Amino acid sequence: MVDIVRSHADLLSARAGCPVVVEAVSARDRNRDRGIDVSGLRWADNAVDLARDPHVDVVVELIGGENGVALDLVRTALDNGKHVVTANKAMLAHHGAELAARAEEQGVALAYEAAVAGGIPIVKALREGLAANGVERVYGILNGTCNYILTTMRETGRDFEDVLRQAQELGYAEADPSFDVDGIDAAHKLALLSGLAFGCKPDFDAIHVEGIRHVSALDLQFASEFGYRIKLLGVARLTQDGLEQRVHPCMVPLDAPIAHVEGVYNAVVAEGDSVGSTLYQGQGAGRGPTASAVIADIVDIARGHRIPAFSIPADQLVSAPAAPMSHHFGAYYIRLMVLDRPGVLADIAAAFRDNQVSMESLIQRGRSEVEGQAVPVVFTTHETEEAGLRRALDMIAGFDSVIEPPRMIRIERYL
Amino acid sequence: MVDIVRSHADLLSARAGCPVVVEAVSARDRNRDRGIDVSGLRWADNAVDLARDPHVDVVVELIGGENGVALDLVRTALDNGKHVVTANKAMLAHHGAELAARAEEQGVALAYEAAVAGGIPIVKALREGLAANGVERVYGILNGTCNYILTTMRETGRDFEDVLRQAQELGYAEADPSFDVDGIDAAHKLALLSGLAFGCKPDFDAIHVEGIRHVSALDLQFASEFGYRIKLLGVARLTQDGLEQRVHPCMVPLDAPIAHVEGVYNAVVAEGDSVGSTLYQGQGAGRGPTASAVIADIVDIARGHRIPAFSIPADQLVSAPAAPMSHHFGAYYIRLMVLDRPGVLADIAAAFRDNQVSMESLIQRGRSEVEGQAVPVVFTTHETEEAGLRRALDMIAGFDSVIEPPRMIRIERYL
Repeated sequence: MVDIVRSHADLLSARAGCPVVVEAVSARDRNRDRGIDVSGLRWADNAVDLARDPHVDVVVELIGGENGVALDLVRTALDNGKHVVTANKAMLAHHGAELAARAEEQGVALAYEAAVAGGIPIVKALREGLAANGVERVYGILNGTCNYILTTMRETGRDFEDVLRQAQELGYAEADPSFDVDGIDAAHKLALLSGLAFGCKPDFDAIHVEGIRHVSALDLQFASEFGYRIKLLGVARLTQDGLEQRVHPCMVPLDAPIAHVEGVYNAVVAEGDSVGSTLYQGQGAGRGPTASAVIADIVDIARGHRIPAFSIPADQLVSAPAAPMSHHFGAYYIRLMVLDRPGVLADIAAAFRDNQVSMESLIQRGRSEVEGQAVPVVFTTHETEEAGLRRALDMIAGFDSVIEPPRMIRIERYL
Repeated sequence: MVDIVRSHADLLSARAGCPVVVEAVSARDRNRDRGIDVSGLRWADNAVDLARDPHVDVVVELIGGENGVALDLVRTALDNGKHVVTANKAMLAHHGAELAARAEEQGVALAYEAAVAGGIPIVKALREGLAANGVERVYGILNGTCNYILTTMRETGRDFEDVLRQAQELGYAEADPSFDVDGIDAAHKLALLSGLAFGCKPDFDAIHVEGIRHVSALDLQFASEFGYRIKLLGVARLTQDGLEQRVHPCMVPLDAPIAHVEGVYNAVVAEGDSVGSTLYQGQGAGRGPTASAVIADIVDIARGHRIPAFSIPADQLVSAPAAPMSHHFGAYYIRLMVLDRPGVLADIAAAFRDNQVSMESLIQRGRSEVEGQAVPVVFTTHETEEAGLRRALDMIAGFDSVIEPPRMIRIERYL
């Protein structure tokens, strides 16, 4: 970020209407090599000191973490009348409404374009570009690590653990990959998209979250056969039961634009009642995209923009009731590993029937070559309520011939 | 637009921070049925009167046309200190720099999100979201009518005239389709994208413009065989020779995201030096998308945003020298209709060789069944300079065995 502020000084000054200058920096370790020369910059051993510094107009928080120093810094900065620019999705997903209110009390900006989908200006699109629209649904590929893993698994036929290891070696995944592969990072971002789209307080705890650890090479292969891609999506939409917010692997049809978003790319689709469906795609992480978003926020602040963090005043943000996943209505892909014994398919079909789940298609290929070896049996269902499907799967999981827990992936047809 | 301002009054008030009210309207014919009730609104017989009305803060110009009433209205409104929101790409492509300067003199906004790519907030993305970036290239599918025609031709194998007629019946194309199918509308939009991306004065006359009338069903079929889609693209990029701006049919590879933008959808790709490649997709025209963009501009104005129309102050906009198309460097698709006589291929190959054009692939399928009937011969070339290619085609066009003018479509490989 510091290097771009320097190399693009004239461009930024023309666009912002005033010079943008890095006044001081702080980090845990002053001496770490960051690839840029910080020797000419004022150094603060304690980041929070910058939040009280009279020479600072804007505090940029890139520390990360839901609480701790980051939250302390941001609260102190806002309370001292400093604008804040942050990339901290975890902090905002948990404390967004509180921080938005603090910013408004002081008449300063709380900007966080870099917190969602990297360099893609999706916060701006929802908060400003689609301001005329009642938003009906917002969804997207919000985690580049997961998208890279799923893309590579599909292209190479390799398994999750294997591709994860490669992603770690390439620096696309952290040593502790849980935040990414278990869907937590995507859920943090979804909480912010919901806040922007629906005027509600970001509420991480209301999100149903599943990661991609259980997606197998076999599932990716069957998905292709059915004409789908598997993507980890975050989906938020208003239903009669409340706000449905969910992060989980999805099968998306090949004619959905989002099916073609591959590798480390992110994409968000926002559906408005006037504009229809709009898609935003780009790199979701990395130094350049993050800096692009952070500096765009700084330019906005320099241009005098003061928009409430979640588009409407903080005291008007609602606490939306969460629509329970048991009420989710959709189609499903089910994979069972079964021992090829007489009657097993009849038992499975009966379990579906007894729970009002209507099968759409079935693939059972070949017989096991070794006696007692399981074979995959794969179903897709028609639209059904998740509660019934779960009951059916619980029954099926108890069958002697079904030797692994059933795998279920939701199908998103209407993208 | 009027209906959305009414139905979303509370939402808009919360987002804008003040009520948004339609104060008065004007049009040529007061009594035409527009599907909304305007009886409660103040009516002005002369639109320009609204530009001097002390009760009006923002003038919305949806009249269209490069000059005439529209230009008169907008000039008068700006000079009287009114903010202007317009969807008029033709006016801005020709008079954008002048109008931007007038707006700045008065400290008012000149906003035109609806002028480019309908409801997609691409003006905002370039002007604000990517403000940290030196933009390297911007390109897109900027005309939904052409994209609909090309998509339908490919899907059905039907010819241009036939599909155009259908598009006219469906209301996707005007009775006089020239603005759309000859690329003029796309060029108007490209002039604005260039202004935003490169900080230059919009200059319609500097744009190389070709339409889609010469694209045949045969070309679409060969494109598929080569692994391409044909799209009418507007492309602007800075080269060593100056600013290259061109609108013409392109062959784009199937792995480019823009290849999958079909039907009436528009999409714009902006490549920044920090953010990388970002794509924005949505409906490029129609009542809802246009209203979405116009109202977003009004909300921006209500929120107090005053950004120069082309991102930097009007007096800093440069007149970029135009890079001549003869210097364009790229790959080409060439289709010839030739009589199948001995030696014809050798003559063609010699013409390419003598002009330093290197052939990449050749398709000549079968022989004509009827003596004297022409058969298509199709080439793709390696990267070459357009001047040489044009010389080769001029030579080839003079051959007796080549019975139609050669057809050339540029290939865009690096999307």
